[in-house]
Amino acid sequence: MFKRKKIAVIGAGFTGATTALMLAQKELGDIVLLDIPDLENATKGKALDMLEAGPVQAFNSHIRGTSRYEDMHDADMVIITAGMARKPGMSRDELVHTNAAIMKSVAENVANYAPTSYILVLSNPVDVMTYVCYQTTGFPKNRVIGQSGVLDTARFNAFVAMELQVSVEDITGFVLGGHGDDMVPLIRYSSVGGIPIDKLIPPDRLEVIVERTRKGGGEIVSLLGNGSAYYAPAAALVHMAEAILKDKKRVLPSVAYLEGEYGYRDIYLGVPTVIGGDGVEKILEVQLTEQEKRDLDRSADSVRQVLAHMKK
Amino acid sequence: MFKRKKIAVIGAGFTGATTALMLAQKELGDIVLLDIPDLENATKGKALDMLEAGPVQAFNSHIRGTSRYEDMHDADMVIITAGMARKPGMSRDELVHTNAAIMKSVAENVANYAPTSYILVLSNPVDVMTYVCYQTTGFPKNRVIGQSGVLDTARFNAFVAMELQVSVEDITGFVLGGHGDDMVPLIRYSSVGGIPIDKLIPPDRLEVIVERTRKGGGEIVSLLGNGSAYYAPAAALVHMAEAILKDKKRVLPSVAYLEGEYGYRDIYLGVPTVIGGDGVEKILEVQLTEQEKRDLDRSADSVRQVLAHMKK
Amino acid sequence: MFKRKKIAVIGAGFTGATTALMLAQKELGDIVLLDIPDLENATKGKALDMLEAGPVQAFNSHIRGTSRYEDMHDADMVIITAGMARKPGMSRDELVHTNAAIMKSVAENVANYAPTSYILVLSNPVDVMTYVCYQTTGFPKNRVIGQSGVLDTARFNAFVAMELQVSVEDITGFVLGGHGDDMVPLIRYSSVGGIPIDKLIPPDRLEVIVERTRKGGGEIVSLLGNGSAYYAPAAALVHMAEAILKDKKRVLPSVAYLEGEYGYRDIYLGVPTVIGGDGVEKILEVQLTEQEKRDLDRSADSVRQVLAHMKK
Amino acid sequence: MFKRKKIAVIGAGFTGATTALMLAQKELGDIVLLDIPDLENATKGKALDMLEAGPVQAFNSHIRGTSRYEDMHDADMVIITAGMARKPGMSRDELVHTNAAIMKSVAENVANYAPTSYILVLSNPVDVMTYVCYQTTGFPKNRVIGQSGVLDTARFNAFVAMELQVSVEDITGFVLGGHGDDMVPLIRYSSVGGIPIDKLIPPDRLEVIVERTRKGGGEIVSLLGNGSAYYAPAAALVHMAEAILKDKKRVLPSVAYLEGEYGYRDIYLGVPTVIGGDGVEKILEVQLTEQEKRDLDRSADSVRQVLAHMKK
Repeated sequence: MFKRKKIAVIGAGFTGATTALMLAQKELGDIVLLDIPDLENATKGKALDMLEAGPVQAFNSHIRGTSRYEDMHDADMVIITAGMARKPGMSRDELVHTNAAIMKSVAENVANYAPTSYILVLSNPVDVMTYVCYQTTGFPKNRVIGQSGVLDTARFNAFVAMELQVSVEDITGFVLGGHGDDMVPLIRYSSVGGIPIDKLIPPDRLEVIVERTRKGGGEIVSLLGNGSAYYAPAAALVHMAEAILKDKKRVLPSVAYLEGEYGYRDIYLGVPTVIGGDGVEKILEVQLTEQEKRDLDRSADSVRQVLAHMKK
Repeated sequence: MFKRKKIAVIGAGFTGATTALMLAQKELGDIVLLDIPDLENATKGKALDMLEAGPVQAFNSHIRGTSRYEDMHDADMVIITAGMARKPGMSRDELVHTNAAIMKSVAENVANYAPTSYILVLSNPVDVMTYVCYQTTGFPKNRVIGQSGVLDTARFNAFVAMELQVSVEDITGFVLGGHGDDMVPLIRYSSVGGIPIDKLIPPDRLEVIVERTRKGGGEIVSLLGNGSAYYAPAAALVHMAEAILKDKKRVLPSVAYLEGEYGYRDIYLGVPTVIGGDGVEKILEVQLTEQEKRDLDRSADSVRQVLAHMKK
Repeated sequence: MFKRKKIAVIGAGFTGATTALMLAQKELGDIVLLDIPDLENATKGKALDMLEAGPVQAFNSHIRGTSRYEDMHDADMVIITAGMARKPGMSRDELVHTNAAIMKSVAENVANYAPTSYILVLSNPVDVMTYVCYQTTGFPKNRVIGQSGVLDTARFNAFVAMELQVSVEDITGFVLGGHGDDMVPLIRYSSVGGIPIDKLIPPDRLEVIVERTRKGGGEIVSLLGNGSAYYAPAAALVHMAEAILKDKKRVLPSVAYLEGEYGYRDIYLGVPTVIGGDGVEKILEVQLTEQEKRDLDRSADSVRQVLAHMKK
Repeated sequence: MFKRKKIAVIGAGFTGATTALMLAQKELGDIVLLDIPDLENATKGKALDMLEAGPVQAFNSHIRGTSRYEDMHDADMVIITAGMARKPGMSRDELVHTNAAIMKSVAENVANYAPTSYILVLSNPVDVMTYVCYQTTGFPKNRVIGQSGVLDTARFNAFVAMELQVSVEDITGFVLGGHGDDMVPLIRYSSVGGIPIDKLIPPDRLEVIVERTRKGGGEIVSLLGNGSAYYAPAAALVHMAEAILKDKKRVLPSVAYLEGEYGYRDIYLGVPTVIGGDGVEKILEVQLTEQEKRDLDRSADSVRQVLAHMKK
């Protein structure tokens, strides 16, 4: 007997809701969209609206909104988008503490109601929040994964496609390390239809593209005026979810738990991985130049500092 | 030489933005998302965020945000989602006058900048706004089309699918007339895998489903608390857009201009049509029972009254 | 841990090979394509050729050719296309005996190597061969299903679409009973965008379409000169496979085992069913006119006679 | 008014027919499948069988079989798969002469009936046949394109995916020059998720994969026993057709006419190109090592010799 997978999306803001829509469009499973009791009706409204798009877009996923964690009972996958955006006047530490508290509460509920699930984390700062989720759930490391590099790569690829006026489908970007400013782009591993990108784009333009990618999240925030990006982040989450649920063995950058790889231990960091039916099935170690290693060290330090501070 | 189609989406609120996303996901063309100057940055932000999802979802559509009508120069298709929702304390007449003024301004710009385009209208009340758009642009009737029945049918089908626990893909609902309360559902033309729906669902449950469909927009509004449905409306618009751009000859309910069909003249009303590369290519006339005809008359009267009042 | 489904396709002729291709295109699982030892290399060649299309069509299904039944070990689904076409000079009885012997051998192997699988049967005459498969495997009835009506309906719908010059997506045909000549089309349950088909097509043209549908397989045979249809039959099989593997609850005509439904017992016959993750989850009984019931009786008689003769 | 594109596929053998099917599945246009008068009925049979798959696979492309060149009147695109396979005892020169004669006749008809079309050539030897087609039609070079590298790359990628047990979607192979034995693979431009392939696969295994790719066509021929590959070749053709018809600006290897690029003139040779709405929109020149240049020279010489011999 074949049953549809059950996917819980925690957080029904723009990102969570768009994630739910894209999961349904790909018929990856039935979806439980969850947010806090105060937003229960709005969550139900979004879920119902999406479900009503099913007959037109020919998808059969059932989608329901809820505020009760019980409703994610035995979910196969949980996607966590919950967490606050930094507000004016809020320090970075305050943000981390607030979001860590949210994450702990979410993760306890996931461990309780969906103990065999695979978890994808988007909440920011993602390297830290994925770590908190891993520790709180006690799940094996392969089943707790953060999203960061798929989105950074998508932005990089989009900018390259615009620069060269070629299809986004032929661009292979490559990033390591943290999200945004801490991102370590490997230009020498980036190509267009196989052609190294630095043969096609002059260094100064490439520098602009890398810088724009680093600040990619901020660019959207400052344009929107109110809120942050959600279309591309949702697409990135669904890309990873599909790789797991369809056991695709995709080679994707993930925020993964390291136990010695790249010289780091007990930390979640963005590295190239094979993502398949068992989550992070493999971490791929690539040789780094000294500069790249220094950049990655800085990225790791930045994560460790936040973790250390948070633990206090 | 093959060029991508150019599609302008007027109004970058939730419905317009979701419409742009779904157009891009189907690679139906390059997209210009347009809203007022005050919202220009937010519009650009949404467009860029969507575009950055392209490398992940493997779509090549270019999407740009703007507030300048010139940017829809020579668009092949224009989708109009602009218009206000009714606010507390606002009379229906005030709403109509406000939205008619917006529509006139939009339509003049469409006529000016995209004189050969096909127009899809979602703005409410849709039968009236489509009429205003038709009159203002002076376009031939087949190129100015309103959306109403695709959404109503989608909701009906979704509710039937839930009731019977079968796939949404096998349900064929059928509605005529106005949107929402003025909708005229033809139960005898509705079926599940070909089986008449009244053989599968008892009359009282069917009544509940019809009533829920009528109030479908209101159900979402009341759940959301703030704002109205956008996922299913956007999907409905994109469904019609695809039928036109890919010349699919779909049999879909449209808000079409009548010149004697069903006994009406000089009015836009929801009727079954063939939608293809030339817009409304055909209006299908089905025999109505006396009761159905009376209901449709009432629907038409309601449209006419608003039109008459508006012209004053 | 999520694993791809394993699907065995028995018979690597045109239909079997096209079925494997279409399964892969939809990434419904990894595929084992099986034929007799004499054709082992050709089977491997087709499988490899298809697999090499994967990087271009972006599908990840693994496809392998084999002649060893062990290779379908623990398959989730088995699709049986094996069997001979009738040759000149061969009586219908000879054909039945030959194909029944093939089916028994195949079914024993399925029962042995894939004891929990769901089986789809295409081999002709399909009502009889599905029965043989059911009896030989001893599987529960819901897990042994024949294909006939999805193909007949597809042909009917294609002819109606050509007649009316509208999209195939909006046509709902409905057939009962046997394949081809024994088919019982229910015109009153057939519609175009919900509109009863007899309101759109005059009786004489409809008669031509029904007759052409009945003889649809023969039309292709006589055009090809050598061999029979395989594109539409493969598409029909994959449609049913998808409904099961994705638990879609589709309302589709299937060759299903009857235990009293429509007044028949211990027979496989084409009836409307709900197809989902547990195979035939439900048989839908629709009211028949006296004429329809007579036609269905004749269809059933024809199946019973072959069964009776075969058992001798 | 939007009209479906018209695509003629010349040659209704396995490759041509599979190409037609895949074009229809992607709804890239309406299809005319053409073969010689002796095969007219078989061609019609295949076309009809495919068309009858449309209602099930939800594609609207019309497909017709014919033997009359007039039926490709005003086609937007022509895909040429016609030509003989080499038969036992036939010399390579005989093959070239036979196929060149077929190509001339086909090309004259294309020039006559579809003078504004874009042409894709698969017929072997493809570099030579594309040249013949170019010269016979007198079309501008960007509108006459051969397929070779998309298929070679697909095979290479499939083999790498099997070797590493990762998704075919993450592999970027890169080939230059002729088809098969004359192929010049650029390992240093081949990667997996951006990681250079030689960091992941040891040299001896990589050598095996390159060699298997070179002999990829022969491997299928020898397995099939009778006939040659058609699934992957058809997929490759449709990939290029889609890039043109949807103006995708894909970076793909094409058999393109060179006027000085890579140091060659008046020859068709496999090179990286940008394929969009105007066919070959750009030839991308990449730096070659001396060894690679020598290999490419040999590839070019081989093409020139055949051309020279043929012209005699």
